[in-house]
Amino acid sequence: MRSPMHQNQLTLILGVFQAAFLVIFALYGSYDASALPSKEKNVEEAVRMTNLYPLFQDTHVMIFIGFGFLMTFLKRYGFSAVSINMLLAVFTIQWGIIVRGMASAHHGFKFTISLEQLLTADFAAAVILISMGAMLGKLSPSQYVIMAFFETPVALIVEHICVHNLQINDVGGSIIVHAFGAYFGLACAKAFGKKEQRGHQNEGSTYHTDIFAMIGAIFLWIYWPSFNAAVAATDDARQRAVANTFLSLCACTMTTFLVSQAVDKHKRFDMVHIANSTLAGGVAIGTTANVVLEPYHAMIVGVIAGAVSVIGYKYITPFLSEKLGIHDTCGVNNLHGMPGLIAGFASIAFLFIYDESRYPAQYDKIYPGMARGEDGKRMFDEKTQALNQLMAIGLVFLASTVSGYITGLLLKLKIWDQVQDEEYYADGDYFETPGDYDFTSRIVTSVSKIEVAEYNPLSQKEV
Amino acid sequence: MRSPMHQNQLTLILGVFQAAFLVIFALYGSYDASALPSKEKNVEEAVRMTNLYPLFQDTHVMIFIGFGFLMTFLKRYGFSAVSINMLLAVFTIQWGIIVRGMASAHHGFKFTISLEQLLTADFAAAVILISMGAMLGKLSPSQYVIMAFFETPVALIVEHICVHNLQINDVGGSIIVHAFGAYFGLACAKAFGKKEQRGHQNEGSTYHTDIFAMIGAIFLWIYWPSFNAAVAATDDARQRAVANTFLSLCACTMTTFLVSQAVDKHKRFDMVHIANSTLAGGVAIGTTANVVLEPYHAMIVGVIAGAVSVIGYKYITPFLSEKLGIHDTCGVNNLHGMPGLIAGFASIAFLFIYDESRYPAQYDKIYPGMARGEDGKRMFDEKTQALNQLMAIGLVFLASTVSGYITGLLLKLKIWDQVQDEEYYADGDYFETPGDYDFTSRIVTSVSKIEVAEYNPLSQKEV
Amino acid sequence: MRSPMHQNQLTLILGVFQAAFLVIFALYGSYDASALPSKEKNVEEAVRMTNLYPLFQDTHVMIFIGFGFLMTFLKRYGFSAVSINMLLAVFTIQWGIIVRGMASAHHGFKFTISLEQLLTADFAAAVILISMGAMLGKLSPSQYVIMAFFETPVALIVEHICVHNLQINDVGGSIIVHAFGAYFGLACAKAFGKKEQRGHQNEGSTYHTDIFAMIGAIFLWIYWPSFNAAVAATDDARQRAVANTFLSLCACTMTTFLVSQAVDKHKRFDMVHIANSTLAGGVAIGTTANVVLEPYHAMIVGVIAGAVSVIGYKYITPFLSEKLGIHDTCGVNNLHGMPGLIAGFASIAFLFIYDESRYPAQYDKIYPGMARGEDGKRMFDEKTQALNQLMAIGLVFLASTVSGYITGLLLKLKIWDQVQDEEYYADGDYFETPGDYDFTSRIVTSVSKIEVAEYNPLSQKEV
Repeated sequence: MRSPMHQNQLTLILGVFQAAFLVIFALYGSYDASALPSKEKNVEEAVRMTNLYPLFQDTHVMIFIGFGFLMTFLKRYGFSAVSINMLLAVFTIQWGIIVRGMASAHHGFKFTISLEQLLTADFAAAVILISMGAMLGKLSPSQYVIMAFFETPVALIVEHICVHNLQINDVGGSIIVHAFGAYFGLACAKAFGKKEQRGHQNEGSTYHTDIFAMIGAIFLWIYWPSFNAAVAATDDARQRAVANTFLSLCACTMTTFLVSQAVDKHKRFDMVHIANSTLAGGVAIGTTANVVLEPYHAMIVGVIAGAVSVIGYKYITPFLSEKLGIHDTCGVNNLHGMPGLIAGFASIAFLFIYDESRYPAQYDKIYPGMARGEDGKRMFDEKTQALNQLMAIGLVFLASTVSGYITGLLLKLKIWDQVQDEEYYADGDYFETPGDYDFTSRIVTSVSKIEVAEYNPLSQKEV
Repeated sequence: MRSPMHQNQLTLILGVFQAAFLVIFALYGSYDASALPSKEKNVEEAVRMTNLYPLFQDTHVMIFIGFGFLMTFLKRYGFSAVSINMLLAVFTIQWGIIVRGMASAHHGFKFTISLEQLLTADFAAAVILISMGAMLGKLSPSQYVIMAFFETPVALIVEHICVHNLQINDVGGSIIVHAFGAYFGLACAKAFGKKEQRGHQNEGSTYHTDIFAMIGAIFLWIYWPSFNAAVAATDDARQRAVANTFLSLCACTMTTFLVSQAVDKHKRFDMVHIANSTLAGGVAIGTTANVVLEPYHAMIVGVIAGAVSVIGYKYITPFLSEKLGIHDTCGVNNLHGMPGLIAGFASIAFLFIYDESRYPAQYDKIYPGMARGEDGKRMFDEKTQALNQLMAIGLVFLASTVSGYITGLLLKLKIWDQVQDEEYYADGDYFETPGDYDFTSRIVTSVSKIEVAEYNPLSQKEV
Repeated sequence: MRSPMHQNQLTLILGVFQAAFLVIFALYGSYDASALPSKEKNVEEAVRMTNLYPLFQDTHVMIFIGFGFLMTFLKRYGFSAVSINMLLAVFTIQWGIIVRGMASAHHGFKFTISLEQLLTADFAAAVILISMGAMLGKLSPSQYVIMAFFETPVALIVEHICVHNLQINDVGGSIIVHAFGAYFGLACAKAFGKKEQRGHQNEGSTYHTDIFAMIGAIFLWIYWPSFNAAVAATDDARQRAVANTFLSLCACTMTTFLVSQAVDKHKRFDMVHIANSTLAGGVAIGTTANVVLEPYHAMIVGVIAGAVSVIGYKYITPFLSEKLGIHDTCGVNNLHGMPGLIAGFASIAFLFIYDESRYPAQYDKIYPGMARGEDGKRMFDEKTQALNQLMAIGLVFLASTVSGYITGLLLKLKIWDQVQDEEYYADGDYFETPGDYDFTSRIVTSVSKIEVAEYNPLSQKEV
């Protein structure tokens, strides 16, 4: 039984945060001019609704359906997966708009909201939901919210440094969203880990929960091109980002099936790979989706990502859990972490493969730091840009692991409502569950015993 | 057993209606010029396909996936929920195009069809599907169709009066779609109610049907901004409608989690709240999604709607059922009814918060009745407009409850195929069901008995 | 047990193909100018991302969610359905881009990629996934890939002849996509058939797998207007294609419910009809979605398609299976085959109903072969065009059945990994399955025995 203090903790936390958000939005938030009535016909606003809105909505599906259902694979944690995903997303969207507004504020702290801010708020939510994947089943709702509260500002400040100071290109956010979320989650899992979280009887899927997870997986797969293209600067860059992501995903999916079967003793596919590794190509091409000019380069990136991801699930995740005590419930290292690093290193490689001579125009739309001044000189050359991309990877890795580890320690404090050992990866303590909850999650998975009872006593022959 | 007359009733009804629809479309229906080939390049048609089509498709997903899956939560009524939802939608779409065409006809009864008509036909379907939510599990397919047949013209004529005579603003249809559908449904449920419908053993969910329902819930949540923005008059109004709905939904979702847990004895979340009350913010901001100019106002509306909706599910729905004999299967009063009224009253409040001085332009795009004539005078002032909004709420409430009650009485007539008492909330009489239908819906929910049989006789230890 | 050679076959096949795809893309593939940076502002590229991208994404959902989940209805084949659907789609997308590029190459074999190519690659995937529906549960993953390898070039070359030589109009691909895929699949099923595939104990659904299938069905239903409109030449034609498809689907759905119930002994609906026949209206209007100028004509087409499709499921599919040895797992003849033929013959009828006099303009945008030359003469008249449409139907039917039959014979060869008789329609040999796999698929469907064990021994009363 949870103590009354712990039972009422979430009420208090959500109440305080939502009240604070309201006050901050009231004091400092306003709509962007493009979303307000004005005398002049604003062409930009029209472009926003026609060009950006469909991409925004695709991203929105990824956040709420994609991540939400991808995490329903656990047999007794479906309610939590899809609901807490929603809760963390709406928390982070509001908190992210505030933090990002704060970080971008120039004169006085005021922030404006248009479709772009809703889109980038969804990106911020993605960071937190990736970390949630590593911690899935181990935190109480209060702890998830506290994690999101601390992670959001770190992630967004690091993003701000990467984009505005280091001027890196990371159009699909593979470094600043995917890698950050994954390594924050892993470090948090390390600090928070205890042996009861590993090899837990609740950790496993049922036949239908694996299919529920595929709803999330496939919607992520379908809309990933929109995610990677949404913030690209020009129409051709968007179309290129779509095509590169599409081709990378196709090649990655082929490779996932290939390797999944090849590494299995019985040469069977593993649904964990199908649901997750097929998406690694979307992450791995994310940083350079607007850069790559040759289709086969995108495909090579997809092939590498798919192979690395499956191998990660097969060998690295168990190793991290058993040897290093890093238990990663969804294997976010394989879907977001390593593919995010691949994306980062690919961005360095592609800087030298596609130098300015390959671009008849718009090189500076992709790398603002290489814009030519009036004297024809560029602020950065390719080498500086490459160094910056590398520094961004380093910064993300460092900041995410340190802040994740500290957050993990913080979440261990007894002041927080903690999940009981036997209730890891289970909805029961936090959700009202229907009568078949135990059945679906406990009995169904010990089928042989039912079978025995079924025909032996009455001598009926097996069906 | 149903009598042959009742068994064949639906065949007859659908046959007659579809034949009538065909004849009426043949005699009076034609495509709008924008959908026909023409010599002049028509810019409007291009705008329709680029601006409106994505919003239309989002709405389309809400109608067929959103409403359909939201209602699959009942353990034995999933086939009906998703199928009858589809049947009523396609019935109402055709019937609604005809009725709306009739209502708008100026010279001779002719109606034209373009993308707008398909969109508003989807809106008409929403009205009926909301009422279906209140009656879920209690009607035979024939009765559902008859209900849709009578409800559609009343709803659309009331809508016509509200929009064209009272000139109200209700951009997201919270008054004329959501409140109408909900109170029609409640009144119908009252008239149709009998005690066997309450506390029925089939009324309840299973673990997986609650997850199926979340597919519907989340798609409704994601695409609600499109629903509220689709018919807004200008690009900035659309973007504003999107942002207001988005923020209202976020604040509403936080509040839903907060209150759901706070009102529970064991401080657990209830999936009914997560799947339904999180959407109340979309309804409550609907009427004024194009009006609200300050983000935090939208958030306040969302907070209120979430709290009211959860409290409704917890206390008002049982009260209505037990004390007043109004059994509301899906709790549409809490998702569509009360939030619809909140939307209506908010529209009155916002008339005084945002008067003309707050609008540099386009005030008359939102309130056509306040357009200034050549003499600079407005037909309405804010007070008249507010009165009209109030009259619309009253008219909708009155018309929906009276017509709903009469329809409920009508549906009780023995001429209609009636659901047997033991078959309320069950697919079995109307759908061919696979072998595990009884298992999933009946046995699985009495788990303890299986457990006993499972290990006792053979002395196996519990898993 | 599968032999090592067979177990490793897929690894080899996927490896060789993905390597070959990479090499071919590297040597011959490049992005279209509209997707590359350029000095001139390219208006076409903007149109692509605003006009085409939303329609492309809708189609993309149909391919991966629509087809994938529609095929999850089998009780033990859900993993395969949704996964192999994905594998065949990404295989065919890459292979289709190559083949189509080859077929269109004018000077030297080079192909370019823009959004159009990704869209038409999705269309190519649809052909193969339709054939997969006929073979569902009968092939090993290797065999599915081999089937796709042979079918793709035949389908695309036939399409090329129909579109470029015969100059037919088939805007939604009902002839060249749906009918081809269906009759290839049927012929393949005939050649590959053996009696163990018929009346198999694994062939059937469970309550929840039927609901999973509805996810696919409804997304197909919703986005079908986008599929039929995507490649239409002008904005008005697109809007018309949307409206015609929408109305045809509505009328078809009403008819499906009507006939499904009418032909059933107990007057109950069959979920197979609801999930499949409701879509036949989208196929049947596909060829002429851009042609039909009167709404009620589209509705008549939908009514016919719905009726034919249900009757097909009820009477023709069993007849084909039992009398002709053509076992069609998903009944693709009823959803894609016959409705595709209806679409083809409707295109001939509509040529005479809507002759050039009905078109103030753009007749030649729909039928390029009827464009007037400088002398005012048309290359074709309506009769020639009608003959060409007829020849296309004949060509598609002939080419698909011959190539399908040969492919079926080829797939029977012992060199391929073959599914064991008892493992038809089952995931177990090719996917790692969770502990309840047998339970869900085997025991749950023999419920009565569990019931007996449940209460008799312990004298508990039934629930």
